Amino acid sequence: MKRKSQARSSSVSRAGSLSALSLGHGKRTRLFDLLYGHGPANGTLMVLPLDQGLEHGPSDFFPNPAALDTDFQFRLAVAGRFSAIALGVGLAEKYLRDYAGRVPLILKLNGKTNIPDDAEAVSPAFASVEDAVRLGADAVGYTVYVGSPRQDVEIREYGKVRQDCERLGMPLVVWAYPRGRGIEAKGGKGTLFAQDYAARVAEELGADVVKLHEPAPDPGASPEPYRSLREDAASRLRRVVRSAGKVMVLFSGGAKQDDDDAVLKKVKLYMECGATGVMFGRNMWLREYDAALALTRRVHAIMHRFAR
Amino acid sequence: MKRKSQARSSSVSRAGSLSALSLGHGKRTRLFDLLYGHGPANGTLMVLPLDQGLEHGPSDFFPNPAALDTDFQFRLAVAGRFSAIALGVGLAEKYLRDYAGRVPLILKLNGKTNIPDDAEAVSPAFASVEDAVRLGADAVGYTVYVGSPRQDVEIREYGKVRQDCERLGMPLVVWAYPRGRGIEAKGGKGTLFAQDYAARVAEELGADVVKLHEPAPDPGASPEPYRSLREDAASRLRRVVRSAGKVMVLFSGGAKQDDDDAVLKKVKLYMECGATGVMFGRNMWLREYDAALALTRRVHAIMHRFAR
Amino acid sequence: MKRKSQARSSSVSRAGSLSALSLGHGKRTRLFDLLYGHGPANGTLMVLPLDQGLEHGPSDFFPNPAALDTDFQFRLAVAGRFSAIALGVGLAEKYLRDYAGRVPLILKLNGKTNIPDDAEAVSPAFASVEDAVRLGADAVGYTVYVGSPRQDVEIREYGKVRQDCERLGMPLVVWAYPRGRGIEAKGGKGTLFAQDYAARVAEELGADVVKLHEPAPDPGASPEPYRSLREDAASRLRRVVRSAGKVMVLFSGGAKQDDDDAVLKKVKLYMECGATGVMFGRNMWLREYDAALALTRRVHAIMHRFAR
Amino acid sequence: MKRKSQARSSSVSRAGSLSALSLGHGKRTRLFDLLYGHGPANGTLMVLPLDQGLEHGPSDFFPNPAALDTDFQFRLAVAGRFSAIALGVGLAEKYLRDYAGRVPLILKLNGKTNIPDDAEAVSPAFASVEDAVRLGADAVGYTVYVGSPRQDVEIREYGKVRQDCERLGMPLVVWAYPRGRGIEAKGGKGTLFAQDYAARVAEELGADVVKLHEPAPDPGASPEPYRSLREDAASRLRRVVRSAGKVMVLFSGGAKQDDDDAVLKKVKLYMECGATGVMFGRNMWLREYDAALALTRRVHAIMHRFAR
Amino acid sequence: MKRKSQARSSSVSRAGSLSALSLGHGKRTRLFDLLYGHGPANGTLMVLPLDQGLEHGPSDFFPNPAALDTDFQFRLAVAGRFSAIALGVGLAEKYLRDYAGRVPLILKLNGKTNIPDDAEAVSPAFASVEDAVRLGADAVGYTVYVGSPRQDVEIREYGKVRQDCERLGMPLVVWAYPRGRGIEAKGGKGTLFAQDYAARVAEELGADVVKLHEPAPDPGASPEPYRSLREDAASRLRRVVRSAGKVMVLFSGGAKQDDDDAVLKKVKLYMECGATGVMFGRNMWLREYDAALALTRRVHAIMHRFAR
Repeated sequence: MKRKSQARSSSVSRAGSLSALSLGHGKRTRLFDLLYGHGPANGTLMVLPLDQGLEHGPSDFFPNPAALDTDFQFRLAVAGRFSAIALGVGLAEKYLRDYAGRVPLILKLNGKTNIPDDAEAVSPAFASVEDAVRLGADAVGYTVYVGSPRQDVEIREYGKVRQDCERLGMPLVVWAYPRGRGIEAKGGKGTLFAQDYAARVAEELGADVVKLHEPAPDPGASPEPYRSLREDAASRLRRVVRSAGKVMVLFSGGAKQDDDDAVLKKVKLYMECGATGVMFGRNMWLREYDAALALTRRVHAIMHRFAR
Repeated sequence: MKRKSQARSSSVSRAGSLSALSLGHGKRTRLFDLLYGHGPANGTLMVLPLDQGLEHGPSDFFPNPAALDTDFQFRLAVAGRFSAIALGVGLAEKYLRDYAGRVPLILKLNGKTNIPDDAEAVSPAFASVEDAVRLGADAVGYTVYVGSPRQDVEIREYGKVRQDCERLGMPLVVWAYPRGRGIEAKGGKGTLFAQDYAARVAEELGADVVKLHEPAPDPGASPEPYRSLREDAASRLRRVVRSAGKVMVLFSGGAKQDDDDAVLKKVKLYMECGATGVMFGRNMWLREYDAALALTRRVHAIMHRFAR
Repeated sequence: MKRKSQARSSSVSRAGSLSALSLGHGKRTRLFDLLYGHGPANGTLMVLPLDQGLEHGPSDFFPNPAALDTDFQFRLAVAGRFSAIALGVGLAEKYLRDYAGRVPLILKLNGKTNIPDDAEAVSPAFASVEDAVRLGADAVGYTVYVGSPRQDVEIREYGKVRQDCERLGMPLVVWAYPRGRGIEAKGGKGTLFAQDYAARVAEELGADVVKLHEPAPDPGASPEPYRSLREDAASRLRRVVRSAGKVMVLFSGGAKQDDDDAVLKKVKLYMECGATGVMFGRNMWLREYDAALALTRRVHAIMHRFAR
Repeated sequence: MKRKSQARSSSVSRAGSLSALSLGHGKRTRLFDLLYGHGPANGTLMVLPLDQGLEHGPSDFFPNPAALDTDFQFRLAVAGRFSAIALGVGLAEKYLRDYAGRVPLILKLNGKTNIPDDAEAVSPAFASVEDAVRLGADAVGYTVYVGSPRQDVEIREYGKVRQDCERLGMPLVVWAYPRGRGIEAKGGKGTLFAQDYAARVAEELGADVVKLHEPAPDPGASPEPYRSLREDAASRLRRVVRSAGKVMVLFSGGAKQDDDDAVLKKVKLYMECGATGVMFGRNMWLREYDAALALTRRVHAIMHRFAR
Repeated sequence: MKRKSQARSSSVSRAGSLSALSLGHGKRTRLFDLLYGHGPANGTLMVLPLDQGLEHGPSDFFPNPAALDTDFQFRLAVAGRFSAIALGVGLAEKYLRDYAGRVPLILKLNGKTNIPDDAEAVSPAFASVEDAVRLGADAVGYTVYVGSPRQDVEIREYGKVRQDCERLGMPLVVWAYPRGRGIEAKGGKGTLFAQDYAARVAEELGADVVKLHEPAPDPGASPEPYRSLREDAASRLRRVVRSAGKVMVLFSGGAKQDDDDAVLKKVKLYMECGATGVMFGRNMWLREYDAALALTRRVHAIMHRFAR
C-alpha cells in the first residue's frame, strides 16, 4: 500500500492526462486509480488483456500451456505491477478473489468467437456496467467493430453502455477495431486509413481510452488521401494518436514476438508517438512466467520516462 | 453578456420565427436562445457542425490539420459568434467545458461511418435526449435517412427521440438526408425530387428545424412531375423551403469551396429563398483560423439583412 | 357551439352506430364526438386525411400548390364541417393551435415514404397514443399492411398500439391496406379479394373504424372463390362492408377526379352500400378552396340522408 | 345456472383431467370452469374456434354467408353448449357483451394472414394475457409454428406469454402447428412425424391444452422411424396423444365435411383415442344454424360417454 | 433425509469443487446441494437430462416407449439417486410435484426443434430464472450454440440470463454446443477444436458448470494447431477439462449404447480425465427401468472413487 500512497501524493501535481478532461467524479476517481494508483503510476498505462480465449479459442495458449490457467495472468499482472488486467466476467468471477485490490480490473463486457467470418462482425455484450460496479472494476472494456455492415447494432448497443458508464461513473475503454466487408474492400483492418478512422470514431462516440493497433502502410485499396500518403511508422502512429484527440490511446501488441528487444522497441516507439500506454497480451503471457516478469520490468523502465 | 441582453430585449417584439409555432415552454425557451440569444440573434441561424470525423473519417481534416483538434471549431464558434455548434457526445464531453455558456450546443445523437455503402443506410443513436439535457444543450440533432430500405428502423427510432424531446422540452433538428438504393434508382440524393421529399418528411415527422442540401437540377431518373420541371436554383430552393412548411430550414454547405465570395453568394441565395439559416462546416473550419473568422464576419453581415 | 349542442341532444336517441358496440367510456365519448358532435353529426363520418406528403411526397400537391400549406386543409376541415382531420404529429403540432376545438383530430401514428418499393412494406410508428391524448385527439390512425411478408412486425406493433388505445380510451382507425409481394402475386392491392380480406383483418384485429379502398373486379390472379365471382360495384362494396362486421367502414377517394359529380356519385354509392362515411383527401384539397368548400356542402347533403 | 351447479357438484369426485396436474389456483379454477362448468361438463371439451377470417380470409365463409356475422358463432356456442368459443380480441370486444357468462372465452392472442407463403411462418401477438383477464376469459390461445425457420422468434415470444399466464393464472391452449420450409422438406405439416413432434413440443413448452390435427400416414419424406411405421388412424392418434403427455389434446376438424355422420365418426374416434375433446370450427359453423345445432347435440351425446 | 444429512456433515471438510470458487451465497448453497446433498454427494455430479423430446422429437423414445412418460425419468432420477434431473418448464410443471424435494431440478430455459437445419442455429428461451426460483430449482440450464453465425443473439440473450442468475443466486449450467455453418466448415461440432473452444467459451462467459461432448479426433478441416495434433482420447478429454478452467465439466453420453460396460467405461474415463460428472440421458432412460436402475448403481460405484 505504501507504493500506492506515494504514487498518489506525488502525482497530485502532475495528473496531466486527467486535468485536460472534463470528467464526473466517479470516472475521475477510477481513472486516477488506473493512471496514478497502479502500474507505472505516472500517468501511463500498462494493461494486461485476456480475452483471447473467447475471441480466438484456446489455440492461442498452445505456445505456453501454463497461460491457460488464468491464475497465470493474474499473478503476472500483480507481480509485474500492471495498471490493470482486462478480462470478461467469467474469468473475473472465477479468479479475481485472490487478487482483488492488488490489480485493477477492466471488465470487458462484450465479445464473440472467430468461428463465423468477420464480414458482418458484431460483438454482443454478455455483462453490464452494473457487473463492473459489483466486481469493483475501475473501467469497462467494449469492442466496437468500426465500419461493419452491422454498425447500427454495434453503435446502438455501445450507446447504451456509454450511458450506463456516465450514470455509474465508470471509465469506458473502447477496443476500436475496424472490421467487416467494407473495411476489407478498402484495404483491410490494419491500414492507416482504418486505424485512423477508428481512432476518430472512438473520440466522437465518447470513449475515455481507446485500444488501437499500430497502423500499417496503406496498400493500394485504401481511399484517398491515405492511398497516396507516404509516412513512416512513427508518423503513422502520431497521426492516429492525434485523430483520437483527448482520448487516451493504448496500442496493442498483436501476435507474439519472441524477441524481447523487438517488443520493447515497439513499446518505446508507441510512447514516443504519444500513446498513453500499451495493452500487450500474448507478448506478455505467452512467455515463461519469469521471462514475462523480466520483460514487464523493462517495460516499466520505458514507461517511467513518459510520465505525464 | 451585454450583447446577449440587448439581443434579447430587442428581439422580444420581433420573435417572428417562433410566434408562428405552437411550442411547449422548454422548446420555446431553448429555440429563443438559439434564434435571439446567440449568433446573429435576429431570428436567423448560423450553425457550425462537426460530425464529419465520424461520418467521413479524419480524411476530411487533411486540408486543415489544425481542425482535427476540436478546440479549433469551438474557438471559431465562439469568436465567430455562431448560433450553435453541432456535434456528438464524445466531442461535447471532451471539449465543451472551456466554452460552456459561450456558444449553444446542438447535441447530435446519432451517426455512422461511411465504410459500408449506403444502399441500406441507417443511423444509430449513441446518445440520448437525457444526455443533451445533462450537457445543457439547446437542441438535439438527429439524422433521418429518408427513403432508405430500412426506413422503418429509422423512423421508429426517430419517433422515440421525438417523444423524448417533447417530454423534455428539447428542440429537434433533423438532418433529413435522402439515402439508399431506392433514392439512387430515382436520381440520387441531391435532386430536387429527393430534397423536396425530405423537406416534407421532416415537417410531417415533427422536426423543429431541418437541415437540407441545396437541391440540384433533376436528372432523367427522377419521378414526375420533377423530371419535367425546369426551375432555376432559386426556385428550387424556394420550393423545398415551402415544402418544409413551418419547419425552419438550414442549408448545408457541402464540400469545401476555396472562394469566399462563392460561399457568401450561396449564403445570400439561401437566405433570400427563405432559409432560416445555414449549417456550414467544412466551408468554415477547413479555412485557416483567421480566414475562417473573417468569413464568419461577412456571413453575419448577410444574416443581419434577414432579421425576422 | 350551438350546432354541436343541438347535434348532441338530437342524437342521443339515435346513436345507432355506437349502441351496437361494447365500448369503454373513453372510446365511447370520443367516438360520439366524431359521429354526433361534428361533421354531419348524424352517425356518419366525413374525414379529411393529410398524410400524402409523407406517403407520396410533395408531388401530390403540384396540382394545387396552395394545399402544400397545411392551413389550407385545416381551414377547409373547419369551414367544410368535416367530422375530423387525420394527420401526423408534425402537422398537428405545427398547425392545430389555431383550429383546436373547431375540428376533431385523428392523429395518424405511423407512416413511411414510397421511395423503397412495397414488396416488404412495413409502416413504422413515429408517434404514440400518449401523443394523441396530449394533443386532445378524438382517435388515432394506424396503417396495417395486410399480407406483407413482414406482417409479423406490422401486427405485433399494431397490437401494442391497440392495447394503448384500450388503456387510454382512444378509438382506433385502421388504414387496412393490402400490400406486399404476396398480394401482388394474388392480383394486387385493389382487388375484391384483397379488400375483403383487409376488412375482415381489421375486425379480427380490433379496429373501431377501418379505411378501405373501393374494391376492383378481380383479375385472373385472385384466389378462388373470388376469381370466379362476377359482382357489380355495389355488390362488391356491400361485401367488404359485411366482412368488416361491426367495424365502421370509411372508403377512401383515391386519386383526384376533376368531375364533382363523379366524386359525389362515389360518395352516394359508398353510403348506400353501408359505409359509415368517407375519407377523401386529394379529391377535396386538390380543388381550389372555394370549389372544395362547395363540394363539401354537396357531400353533406348526401350524408344527411344516411343518418343512423 | 342449475346445470352448471349440478355439473360442478357432481364433478368434484371425478375431476380426473385436473387432479393429475400441478396447477396454481387461477389456472385450476379456470380449467375447472371449462371442463366441468360448461359444455359437456364431464371433463371433456368442445371448443368452437373462429380465427379463420384472419388466418384464411373471408373466403372461408362463402359456403355459409350467415357465419360472416360473428353473432352466428356466439349463438351457436351458447345454444350448442360449447365448452368455450375461441377467437381474437377484435371479435371478442365487438360481440362478447351479449353472451358474456353464457359461454367461456378462449382469447386467441396471435395470428396472421395466409397471403405470404408459410416457408418462414411466424405468428405475431396482437393481444395480451392482460386483455384476456380484462375480458373475463377462461384461457388464452396461442399458435406456435413448430419447426419454422423462425422458431426462435416463435418460441421466445411464446415464452413471454407462458410466463404471463403463470403470473395471472390463465390456462394456455397451444395451437401446435408444424410449419415452414423444414417441415415441407420432411413430408409436410400433416404427417404423423410432424404432429407427433408438435404434441411433444407443446408438452415441453408448458401448454395446458394443445390443439393438433389428425395425423396422416407418413409419405416417403418423413424421417425414420416414422417413414417405416405402418399404423392405422387410431394408432396414430393414440401415439400423438401419448406424446402430449399430461397436456390435454383437442383435435381440430379441418376443412368442412358435408356428411354429419363422417364428422361424428371423427369425434368418436378422437375421443376413443384419448383426446380430451375437439375444436371443430368450419365443420360446425359452415352448416345452416339448425343443422349445426342438431350436430352439436349429437357431439354432446358422444362426449357424455367419455366422462373423466 | 438421513443420507443427505450424513453427506452434508461429511462433506464439510472436503467441499473441494466449491472452495476454489468465489460464489455468492445463493449459488454456493444451491451448488452445495447438488454436489454434496444429492447424487453421489461427494463433489461429483450425475445429471439425468430430458430435453430430447423438444430437441429431437419423440423419435428418441421409440427404443423405449415407456420413457415417453416423464414419470419414468423422474422415478429413475429418484431411485437412481441422481444429483439432479434437467428438463424444461413444461415437464417440470407437469411432473415435478410428486418428486419435489427428492431430486434436485436443473431447469433448462431454452431449446428448439431440429426441424430447420443448424446452419444458423439459435436457441430461444421459453422460461426464466424467475421460473427456476419459483419451481425450487437448484440450477438453470442454458444452451449456447458456440460459433453460430447468429452468436450475437445467442451471447446477448445468454448474458441477460447470466445476470439474472447472479441476481437470484442461481447456478448456471451451460450446454456449450459448437454449431452452425462456420463450425461445419472447420471440421464439425464433434472435433477437439470445437469442443476445446466451447469449453473455454463457457468459462469466459461465466458458466458455473458446462456440458460438453467427448471430443473426437480432428479431421483435416480443423484449424491449426488442432489439425496436426495427435492425441489419444484421454489426452483430448483432459485438454478440454483444462480449457474449461474452474468451470465444472459434465460430459454427455450421446446416442444410446446397448453395452453397459461400454457406457461405464466412458464414465470412468471421463472422471479420470478430470470431469466433475456426467450428464447421460438416452444411455440411461432408453434402457428398461430395472436395467437402467442397475446401471446407475454401477455409475455410483465409479463416482465414489472420485470424491473431491
